[in-house]
Amino acid sequence: MAVVKVIELIGASPNSWEEATRNAVAKAARTVRNIEGVELVGQTAVVEGGRITQYRADVKIAFVVEEVTEG
Amino acid sequence: MAVVKVIELIGASPNSWEEATRNAVAKAARTVRNIEGVELVGQTAVVEGGRITQYRADVKIAFVVEEVTEG
Amino acid sequence: MAVVKVIELIGASPNSWEEATRNAVAKAARTVRNIEGVELVGQTAVVEGGRITQYRADVKIAFVVEEVTEG
Amino acid sequence: MAVVKVIELIGASPNSWEEATRNAVAKAARTVRNIEGVELVGQTAVVEGGRITQYRADVKIAFVVEEVTEG
Amino acid sequence: MAVVKVIELIGASPNSWEEATRNAVAKAARTVRNIEGVELVGQTAVVEGGRITQYRADVKIAFVVEEVTEG
Amino acid sequence: MAVVKVIELIGASPNSWEEATRNAVAKAARTVRNIEGVELVGQTAVVEGGRITQYRADVKIAFVVEEVTEG
Amino acid sequence: MAVVKVIELIGASPNSWEEATRNAVAKAARTVRNIEGVELVGQTAVVEGGRITQYRADVKIAFVVEEVTEG
Amino acid sequence: MAVVKVIELIGASPNSWEEATRNAVAKAARTVRNIEGVELVGQTAVVEGGRITQYRADVKIAFVVEEVTEG
Amino acid sequence: MAVVKVIELIGASPNSWEEATRNAVAKAARTVRNIEGVELVGQTAVVEGGRITQYRADVKIAFVVEEVTEG
Amino acid sequence: MAVVKVIELIGASPNSWEEATRNAVAKAARTVRNIEGVELVGQTAVVEGGRITQYRADVKIAFVVEEVTEG
Amino acid sequence: MAVVKVIELIGASPNSWEEATRNAVAKAARTVRNIEGVELVGQTAVVEGGRITQYRADVKIAFVVEEVTEG
Amino acid sequence: MAVVKVIELIGASPNSWEEATRNAVAKAARTVRNIEGVELVGQTAVVEGGRITQYRADVKIAFVVEEVTEG
Repeated sequence: MAVVKVIELIGASPNSWEEATRNAVAKAARTVRNIEGVELVGQTAVVEGGRITQYRADVKIAFVVEEVTEG
Repeated sequence: MAVVKVIELIGASPNSWEEATRNAVAKAARTVRNIEGVELVGQTAVVEGGRITQYRADVKIAFVVEEVTEG
Repeated sequence: MAVVKVIELIGASPNSWEEATRNAVAKAARTVRNIEGVELVGQTAVVEGGRITQYRADVKIAFVVEEVTEG
Repeated sequence: MAVVKVIELIGASPNSWEEATRNAVAKAARTVRNIEGVELVGQTAVVEGGRITQYRADVKIAFVVEEVTEG
Repeated sequence: MAVVKVIELIGASPNSWEEATRNAVAKAARTVRNIEGVELVGQTAVVEGGRITQYRADVKIAFVVEEVTEG
Repeated sequence: MAVVKVIELIGASPNSWEEATRNAVAKAARTVRNIEGVELVGQTAVVEGGRITQYRADVKIAFVVEEVTEG
Repeated sequence: MAVVKVIELIGASPNSWEEATRNAVAKAARTVRNIEGVELVGQTAVVEGGRITQYRADVKIAFVVEEVTEG
Repeated sequence: MAVVKVIELIGASPNSWEEATRNAVAKAARTVRNIEGVELVGQTAVVEGGRITQYRADVKIAFVVEEVTEG
Repeated sequence: MAVVKVIELIGASPNSWEEATRNAVAKAARTVRNIEGVELVGQTAVVEGGRITQYRADVKIAFVVEEVTEG
Repeated sequence: MAVVKVIELIGASPNSWEEATRNAVAKAARTVRNIEGVELVGQTAVVEGGRITQYRADVKIAFVVEEVTEG
Repeated sequence: MAVVKVIELIGASPNSWEEATRNAVAKAARTVRNIEGVELVGQTAVVEGGRITQYRADVKIAFVVEEVTEG
Repeated sequence: MAVVKVIELIGASPNSWEEATRNAVAKAARTVRNIEGVELVGQTAVVEGGRITQYRADVKIAFVVEEVTEG
């Protein structure tokens, strides 16, 4: 049966955690096929000069694998 | 004294976790009165073709009850 | 075999978390039969004028069900 | 959009946690339509005379709802 | 070496958890210098009349301190 | 919008965790205005000579702030 | 240096979690010397006929040991 | 009132986590009377040559005690 | 000294979580050498037509690495 | 009775988490009297050029207070 | 098959958490054979006069048992 | 924007968890560029003959990626 692999990425955005999540998914999608879903496991933000300059989304991305590369 | 009941729903939205949460609250509000608040306990997203197509918000909704139905 | 259902309620009391828990159980027992036990999963209190006016007990109540109503 | 409801049941079986989970799902399926999935959140067992007589599976069952009954 | 202090605030907004977080950071920045970052540790919302009227973001804010005031 | 600050105290009592919580709230209320609520996050007890001599309640106290002092 | 051992007991009482905790400590103190403290790690209650008949306190008890018996 | 003691064991089996749990219970039952139940708190497996050779069940076993031995 | 890498996979099986775990390990073993062990960190199941059609085991697989590929 | 306040600091050191913890305590001790203890709640490190340049210890520091300043 | 027992100890040291852990293991090894491993589950320190005087390591120690003594 | 990848390694050392962490980072740095930081998420030790022979540090290592390899 199919096996799913789960990797952890941290995406960033100046605007929102949704966009930070989309950026992480987009980056993964350039090399990983068959992404099924994403889970948001952490939300932080960078503050500079008293203002938030970057939202950071810690996400787990799940995708179907033919072979487990990584060895 | 009043007793509060807590139920768990998962709302969905193509746009954001806020909208997914609002959709869950709106659905509950059609049949449940006296909703007091909501807690976001999980955030996931469905990915299709390398893009997020649905944000899903796992929420706990609290509302005052006259009687505990459910039996 | 019998199936147990678990619901979450928040009981309140001006005096103690035990009484808040008893109030949640009493409310449930008016409509739910066969309650077996309760687990306390959260304890908060409301403060007004610098004094606690209400203890709140977040409880999970387990009871045997003939049929799962809820649909 | 569709909203999913999540309820918590504890199924039992003399044989395994898989069967206990199946029993909880089967009971729910008698009255709840559109069950999508189940998450196992707790595993215990009853012991009598030094032997396990009952496996108990604490599960969360998710199903699509037209209306949130429960109010 | 520099020491970082971490305080917990709950910001609010009628629109989103991002704005609620920004509001907490902005309030802190009026009196606290050298804020480095923020972690979102809880997300709730207030519901009135069946609609969300306030998003609440429970955040931990970290900032470099010369001296630990608080004593 | 108003911002809420959350501080952590440990109250003590020879009698109960409720009284230990009340003592922590009373101490905070001498200098902090606008306390809204308290969450009990830990319960321990000191034992001397085989008997409990002190109940200790680890509590988070939330209060509305005009300005975030602490800097 | 001294080593502390930590054991887990569940005490019971018809009246309160404080008394259930005291009962666990009292039982331990009959055979264990040098108990230093106790941490409450779980609170449940048994319900019969719609009423709580027993409060149960899951506690961790810490005591100084000369030798680690248990082997 | 009766006091329950909770001990932690790790049972093993070449076949399943259920059997690993039964093995832990069976071992405990040779010297411990009045076991009431078991909670599964961890599940691991040993892998050799690319195959699982041993399922390991980390369990908490609860039993009624006359006296707390352990001192 | 040797370094161990930990990856996360989700295996599936129509029969049990043990078989789902074995399937994940088997898939990994086709390309990864020196697997030492596996930890089960999540258990879910897919339900179709009121019956479980697939058990899913979320596992962490640990293996000794010569070099950390992944860059 | 005395009330204990708990604050959260992050200390740093080029050498170890123990030293990072000591640095946090030393900084606090310059302005806070009656520190009783510290709990280590997080351990991270900064990496530059493939080497750890700073250990960071996230600690909770508890101290007895006469008055709760903070308001 | 062999069964492993897990006990919890708190070791202390004036110098480091590693030494505190070694002290706990050394104490256990005087009466317990076949210790396989140890897991660090908590790290605290005692502070006196603004300085750390004792590191305390809360550890779980696992060892193979012939018979489960403890009864 | 840049995306950060997070991988999990377990480093080992005969001396300390700091050295075990450094060993994991050093191994990763041989093939992974742009490591930003590391989080310690687990601490265990191997015991042989009643003495600790190996400290093991379970770490999450974060590094900036141009492309997500892994597919």
